[in-house]
Amino acid sequence: MKRLTALDMGFILLERRNQPLHVAYLNLLRPPANAPPDFAKTLVARLRSYASPLPPFNQRLEHRLGKGFWVEDPEFDIEQHVIHLALPRPGTMQQLLSMVSRMHASHLDRAYPLWRTYIVEGLEGGLIATYSKVHHAVADGVAGTRLTLRSMSTNPTDILPPPWAVPPQGRRERSGGLLATPVEGVVKLASRFGGAFEHVPSVFNELRQSRRERLEGNLDYVAGNGAPASILNQPISASRRYLARSYPLARIKAASRTLGCTANDIMLAMCSHALRRYLIDLGELPKQPLIAGVPMSTRRDRSDVGNQISFLLANLGTHLADPAERLRVIRASVEHSKRRFASMKPGAILGYAAVQMAPGLLSMLFAPKRGGLAFNLVVSNVPGPRSPLYWQGCAVEGMFPVSVLADGMALNITASSRADALDFGILACRRTLPRVDALMDYLGDGLEEIERLARLTIAIGKPVELAVAVDD
Amino acid sequence: MKRLTALDMGFILLERRNQPLHVAYLNLLRPPANAPPDFAKTLVARLRSYASPLPPFNQRLEHRLGKGFWVEDPEFDIEQHVIHLALPRPGTMQQLLSMVSRMHASHLDRAYPLWRTYIVEGLEGGLIATYSKVHHAVADGVAGTRLTLRSMSTNPTDILPPPWAVPPQGRRERSGGLLATPVEGVVKLASRFGGAFEHVPSVFNELRQSRRERLEGNLDYVAGNGAPASILNQPISASRRYLARSYPLARIKAASRTLGCTANDIMLAMCSHALRRYLIDLGELPKQPLIAGVPMSTRRDRSDVGNQISFLLANLGTHLADPAERLRVIRASVEHSKRRFASMKPGAILGYAAVQMAPGLLSMLFAPKRGGLAFNLVVSNVPGPRSPLYWQGCAVEGMFPVSVLADGMALNITASSRADALDFGILACRRTLPRVDALMDYLGDGLEEIERLARLTIAIGKPVELAVAVDD
Repeated sequence: MKRLTALDMGFILLERRNQPLHVAYLNLLRPPANAPPDFAKTLVARLRSYASPLPPFNQRLEHRLGKGFWVEDPEFDIEQHVIHLALPRPGTMQQLLSMVSRMHASHLDRAYPLWRTYIVEGLEGGLIATYSKVHHAVADGVAGTRLTLRSMSTNPTDILPPPWAVPPQGRRERSGGLLATPVEGVVKLASRFGGAFEHVPSVFNELRQSRRERLEGNLDYVAGNGAPASILNQPISASRRYLARSYPLARIKAASRTLGCTANDIMLAMCSHALRRYLIDLGELPKQPLIAGVPMSTRRDRSDVGNQISFLLANLGTHLADPAERLRVIRASVEHSKRRFASMKPGAILGYAAVQMAPGLLSMLFAPKRGGLAFNLVVSNVPGPRSPLYWQGCAVEGMFPVSVLADGMALNITASSRADALDFGILACRRTLPRVDALMDYLGDGLEEIERLARLTIAIGKPVELAVAVDD
Repeated sequence: MKRLTALDMGFILLERRNQPLHVAYLNLLRPPANAPPDFAKTLVARLRSYASPLPPFNQRLEHRLGKGFWVEDPEFDIEQHVIHLALPRPGTMQQLLSMVSRMHASHLDRAYPLWRTYIVEGLEGGLIATYSKVHHAVADGVAGTRLTLRSMSTNPTDILPPPWAVPPQGRRERSGGLLATPVEGVVKLASRFGGAFEHVPSVFNELRQSRRERLEGNLDYVAGNGAPASILNQPISASRRYLARSYPLARIKAASRTLGCTANDIMLAMCSHALRRYLIDLGELPKQPLIAGVPMSTRRDRSDVGNQISFLLANLGTHLADPAERLRVIRASVEHSKRRFASMKPGAILGYAAVQMAPGLLSMLFAPKRGGLAFNLVVSNVPGPRSPLYWQGCAVEGMFPVSVLADGMALNITASSRADALDFGILACRRTLPRVDALMDYLGDGLEEIERLARLTIAIGKPVELAVAVDD
């Protein structure tokens, strides 16, 4: 029995009918060439044979004297957690995405451990999909990714235990549970909330600073501009639309090399192009640029990821028609943000944890009270595996993150890198954002636009003017 | 725009995370012999072509100044309401029931009109299933049945519009909407709640009377005994188990004729046997008999069903091992209840409406405050079609009601008659009631037990002693 941290309890208490607070992955899997027709059925049976999960997957929420505790479920029932589904023929990607949209909209039952994995057969081309959700109070996207990756292998014939049966690994995890470090960090953070604002960590100070600068008329064009009102920032329904598509990492990296910016800048530029076109289609493009809240790794080595990640406010330059201008604005705002955060040390881990673990919480804390928008949407880029991976003997052909929406933030764009691909997942409120399917197409158009810019750079033999007057 | 009645608003306000308040039907359909392989797909496309539904199916809930209104949805989107699913192979009934259990546990999105129909392909033997849910605030089981039946035909080649496109029929429906009469009745009822108890209608007086008799030591053995504490009366989870099976109406009718009781008595005896065995298995059989709340038609002709139906408290005699004794107790308690209600006139319509429309509401109003149980579960027997019917060219081979659970009432048994079958639907809290699948088998055993009793009656040439000292 373990008392819920303040943050975890927050995720329980902040959950709403129209705002479920679970995160998920949609994975696409290619069964081995010699797979029998009942491969999916056998897979489900094998997964269900791991019927005694390890913490936190065997724990459910109990309330005692008004406090929340994680308590081992004495009647753990694997059939509640591993579900076998099928798509109707022909089993298109669109049918799968509709199914995932519905699944992501439905709440986990709090009487059970707060996770569920669906295995979906019947996709065109013989693929299998898994949709795995876990409540934000149990694990965050990062921990989820870590667990998922540890159940995968670079060896096609390696069949490792599924995430809920992966034994703890490493000292930190053993010492305090899988999620100890970030959770502890955020607990400290959360425990300070409601107290003096002087004590909140740098990531929140940054947001507060941005707002103050705006209020005082110090319109720092790069990051302190504040976010305009937009169609994205409205009350949300309980229904979702989920879109997923992979783009080749090689294209993105090539463009970033040519243009002298990061892959993350390119990703933001793709989002910017897509959002601009989408909002123009709807006649809803704000005159001011959209601001994205971007959790970003700033680590320089491969050591622990827990303490060199921060949260940036990126000006997406959606008010600018010229793609070179837009990329320049994005890059400048990101650089500006990075400089501000460069020296972040003890606060950084809190920022990392708060943001990477809790995009939903963050969005809610800074949710649009009329006129007080810090950012319009969360755009996230999660580092994933660098080699091709296999899961249960299947080649992993997609690892699409399915994130969280908060009331007042009707759109989330999260990408996850995987070997040679960047897997985009777009989550939108089904009701608030009409014809959102176009956004995914426009991401691709955005990449093409960037590539034209890169070709132009090569053709004229010098970089298109992207430099900004920054001093590092 | 129409203001929600007090009752409808009640269903909105009383809905909880673990207590969704929608009702549903699971229908089994046999496609025509010459149906092409993509029959289900074509069916879904045809159903979606009815994309402009009539009220109430085109209305969604809006809140204005703290009040609820039904407002036409200007962006009605049929794809939100008609969903195409498939079962994984082999497509057993058990797989279908697991799927329905999950679907029934998930809430309707209040940003949209509160109904949804799923078409499920991939059942063994080429069957198709539909699972159609509607929020209790929009329609009750009776209205739902009526609408469903009006979209069906006795003619296999008749393709009628689906329920959401069936035009209003008849004066009453035209004058005040499909549900006008029962709703109006219950509004009067609801508007009296919280006021003087003298004014509540007879069905509630009856429940109150039963309780008073018990409290005053007047232990009227037939109906005033109060319900014992039981495993059925516990807090519920948000997860469900749904079971469905058909039993031949001919067997039930034959037994009832031989034994000189009604088909409803036989149905209750089946439930009694099943509950007794199930509770014995669990070591949870209460010493006192379980009491069922039974909505029951008392009409003597085929006129409007709206004013001769009442709510009975049936003593299920689960404490008795002897099936003849048990049937006698059931029959006696039902007769006792019927006599009490016989003269019910203006109140009856209210009782009918409150109960038939609102088993969930009733359960909640009389939910188990420790020691104050009026009944342990709702057992309902809904009259359905008397002839074989077809829907969208398919023979209807099952119309299984999927009812509502209220916190504190973890089990519901509802049966619906259909031509030559009685379709049982059992809805249980997945968490509270372990191994509940046995209940459905035990229903069949209960029928066999009754049939043995009937054979005994014939063999010994006179009725087994079922008479009770009642004066009618």
